[in-house]
Amino acid sequence: MNTSKDMTAGNPIIIKIDPSDNVAIVANDGGLQPGTKVPGGVVLKDFVPQGHKFTLEGIEAGGDVVRYGEVIGQAVVDLPEGSWLNDRHIRIPEAPSLEDLPLATRKIDDSPALEGYTFEGYRNLDGSVGTKNVLGIMTSVQCVTGVADHVVRKVKNELLHKYPNVDDVIAITHSYGCGVAIQAPNAAIPIRTLMNLARNPNLGGEVLVVGLGCEKLQPDRLVPKGREVAANVVCLQDIHEDGFEGMIARIMEMVEERLVRLDKRLRETCPVSDLVIGVQCGGSDAFSGITANPAVGFATDRIVKAGGAVLFSEVTEVRDAVHLLTPRVVDEEVGKALIREMSWYDNYLEEGNSDRTANPTPGNKIGGLSNIVEKALGSIVKSGTCPISDVLGHGERVKKKGLVFAATPASDFVCGTQQLASGIVLQVFTTGRGTPYGLAMAPVVKVSSRTALSKRWFDLIDLDAGRIAAGEADIETVGEELFQMILEVASGRTQTAADKLGLANDLVVFNPAPIT
Amino acid sequence: MNTSKDMTAGNPIIIKIDPSDNVAIVANDGGLQPGTKVPGGVVLKDFVPQGHKFTLEGIEAGGDVVRYGEVIGQAVVDLPEGSWLNDRHIRIPEAPSLEDLPLATRKIDDSPALEGYTFEGYRNLDGSVGTKNVLGIMTSVQCVTGVADHVVRKVKNELLHKYPNVDDVIAITHSYGCGVAIQAPNAAIPIRTLMNLARNPNLGGEVLVVGLGCEKLQPDRLVPKGREVAANVVCLQDIHEDGFEGMIARIMEMVEERLVRLDKRLRETCPVSDLVIGVQCGGSDAFSGITANPAVGFATDRIVKAGGAVLFSEVTEVRDAVHLLTPRVVDEEVGKALIREMSWYDNYLEEGNSDRTANPTPGNKIGGLSNIVEKALGSIVKSGTCPISDVLGHGERVKKKGLVFAATPASDFVCGTQQLASGIVLQVFTTGRGTPYGLAMAPVVKVSSRTALSKRWFDLIDLDAGRIAAGEADIETVGEELFQMILEVASGRTQTAADKLGLANDLVVFNPAPIT
Repeated sequence: MNTSKDMTAGNPIIIKIDPSDNVAIVANDGGLQPGTKVPGGVVLKDFVPQGHKFTLEGIEAGGDVVRYGEVIGQAVVDLPEGSWLNDRHIRIPEAPSLEDLPLATRKIDDSPALEGYTFEGYRNLDGSVGTKNVLGIMTSVQCVTGVADHVVRKVKNELLHKYPNVDDVIAITHSYGCGVAIQAPNAAIPIRTLMNLARNPNLGGEVLVVGLGCEKLQPDRLVPKGREVAANVVCLQDIHEDGFEGMIARIMEMVEERLVRLDKRLRETCPVSDLVIGVQCGGSDAFSGITANPAVGFATDRIVKAGGAVLFSEVTEVRDAVHLLTPRVVDEEVGKALIREMSWYDNYLEEGNSDRTANPTPGNKIGGLSNIVEKALGSIVKSGTCPISDVLGHGERVKKKGLVFAATPASDFVCGTQQLASGIVLQVFTTGRGTPYGLAMAPVVKVSSRTALSKRWFDLIDLDAGRIAAGEADIETVGEELFQMILEVASGRTQTAADKLGLANDLVVFNPAPIT
Repeated sequence: MNTSKDMTAGNPIIIKIDPSDNVAIVANDGGLQPGTKVPGGVVLKDFVPQGHKFTLEGIEAGGDVVRYGEVIGQAVVDLPEGSWLNDRHIRIPEAPSLEDLPLATRKIDDSPALEGYTFEGYRNLDGSVGTKNVLGIMTSVQCVTGVADHVVRKVKNELLHKYPNVDDVIAITHSYGCGVAIQAPNAAIPIRTLMNLARNPNLGGEVLVVGLGCEKLQPDRLVPKGREVAANVVCLQDIHEDGFEGMIARIMEMVEERLVRLDKRLRETCPVSDLVIGVQCGGSDAFSGITANPAVGFATDRIVKAGGAVLFSEVTEVRDAVHLLTPRVVDEEVGKALIREMSWYDNYLEEGNSDRTANPTPGNKIGGLSNIVEKALGSIVKSGTCPISDVLGHGERVKKKGLVFAATPASDFVCGTQQLASGIVLQVFTTGRGTPYGLAMAPVVKVSSRTALSKRWFDLIDLDAGRIAAGEADIETVGEELFQMILEVASGRTQTAADKLGLANDLVVFNPAPIT
């Protein structure tokens, strides 16, 4: 990689990833003008914006465009050496066939486990460990959202200050619960997502469920197995006295019992093997796959080698790179599960008269990503190099340690919601375009793919991986910084940018079944 | 209708709606015991809960069960006279065929128009009239929700008190905008729903759109035609200075310009023909169709005869009664549009491996509604007796005055969201089981089908239609009270229960297209 600290146009910087690539990207802020001679000798024929590709050699119409050492598409016009190549110049290839993929063919890395790293977490009765101490007030149905929001405001104003060990009180609201085809086959996904959200380790097993009574998703279904329903559910239609104030009084009583118990939780030193984190990218650009995502991949490897669990996700951003993942699964069963999730999503999109080309976004394209193949190749880099130990269906709870593929849509907020349901207690989020994304239930460490973004959004970005493109730091250095930051945040010693500002997205539950 | 003020078991009260009905419902609080001799001489064989049906004559297995003068299903067991008949005793018939329905066959009512009724509304430049004066801060994508929420809190704390004519500031947030198949055929529905939400008359044409920049739903699409994009959109990725505080400063500046303009809006006397309201039911029971919904139907007729617009909705709660609606359309074109919406939803449910029997809910059944046929027959009563002047697709804006069928899912919160997009400035909501439902964008008048609910939820229900079952008031009396209450609320002279308590549901946008 050609790197330098000077990102101005006077010092052309290009990034070529694999020796076989016939395109490279321009790293300079503001792009490079036609006529610029770049390292290696190619002279640019067109203006090439930052993050965008140009041809290192002439590519004829129909010829393969190669980046990351993979064919990302075919040129639709002749592109002489030095031409700007964007999404209009490239035809997307067929997605890799899901037949005959190599399963578990890669030699398992037998490098020694990583020992000695710990964090200060909240250990729960079920063995899970949280990074926050949050009271969750969960609704079984959207109808009671106004009541849940009212209670959260009241608790924040009147009660929370009395329980200094409790970090926050949050309403776990959603659009599911009624007016839905709850017997439809795909309804299993939103239902288990909600059931598992209630079990997120950061909630300490103390979620209070507020239900209405007449809804399809009966509130007792959200109470974890083995816990008494009556002690954990308030059903508004069952409260017979004093109208709204009667409801609020009953809920506040149950809230305070929970605050008393949560306030007694104490952080204790836990090995990294107790940590479950999620990684995702959003608002990606062409730098995401070469700066931020590789740094995340390095941190992923550290956590997995220390025995922890890292969930990577986003089916449509994995689909076109699945042939690079199936060799990495630990056994055939996990490989088949991975293929099953790809296939399910192919069908789901097809039934909606769509396909994988509905991703990427306009912002991705402006950022230099020409199509979903290129985006996927950069996206899977977050998964590092370890074997894939397990595959989870949408909204399923994590079962195994190690590197886990948790199937989710690529939508940032849906992926975040589902990873929380799977049990993550912290998320690492990379971005090239920038997003104020945050989660109320778990801290989100935001990593920028470009230094310009980190500078501009200095109070919204936690870590600048753009330094990698500028040659100020290598992937290992930024990756190690991220690993250390994850442990600091997980221990409550460092607050993330989103948490400092109190920014959080809504939970958005994936419901591929019809609504009625 | 057999009625009395004494609702205790000592005075059995039964309600039979149509002379041809072979079932009636028990009105008494607490139901009636076996052995009770009810008016007409039938002796109950079983305990019959309040709101539930019993047989007025013996019905053999396979025989038709008739209520509202319509076949609501066939008995699956022999049911001797006086038997309790619930959802387990009845088989649902086929839905009415959408072929060969009678279109526009009913003689148009030529009774004189209703003159002389007015309300005090906020007239907008586009001719629409609002009932509230609300500043809306709308997101183009879920990613920026945290920022919008932050701004709303800040405006409420720091600015709103300076602009006493502005009723409220609300975040118009949603789960759409990115991670969606925006080119899929069905994506038209969520997109137009959001575009039309921004145009709701209660927002005074002053919506501020907060976008991110890289999202699929580009924020300029939410700016009403003819308005300048730059003056109405803040795009976070385009703000180059001062990080988060820079974003907030820019948004607050644009907010204050809007507050200054909104504060100058004044109510003026408007004819009822300027009013656009929506009606819906939620948490229905067997009383809904005989108390609350008929009272709403009466008020609907008053508003329509005064030249206003009333939207009724909820496709799956209309589908089984469509043969009673098609004769009422004003012309064949409207009739075909009604059938088109029924057919679209049939297909939508079928594609999701579901059908109309996914409605009703457990609460409906406990409330005495055996199936969707019975529920639909009670639901359409809200539409009164006037001709149906128009049919709107999901999320379309109202085009004509009169009684309008606006296609929506039956889900309360989705129906509410779509009716707001269609342009309602007030909603009437009937309930038998009880719900704290509310909308931030428009007042919701809640009408209870049972007096017991109105008493228990005295501060959540605005009007008790249960008095109709108890013989304390007739449909016309309660209907006229509702009509007057609608005008009072629309004029800002009366605050609804939900508005007094500050209860509002989230907006939930219907997206039948895939997410990516």
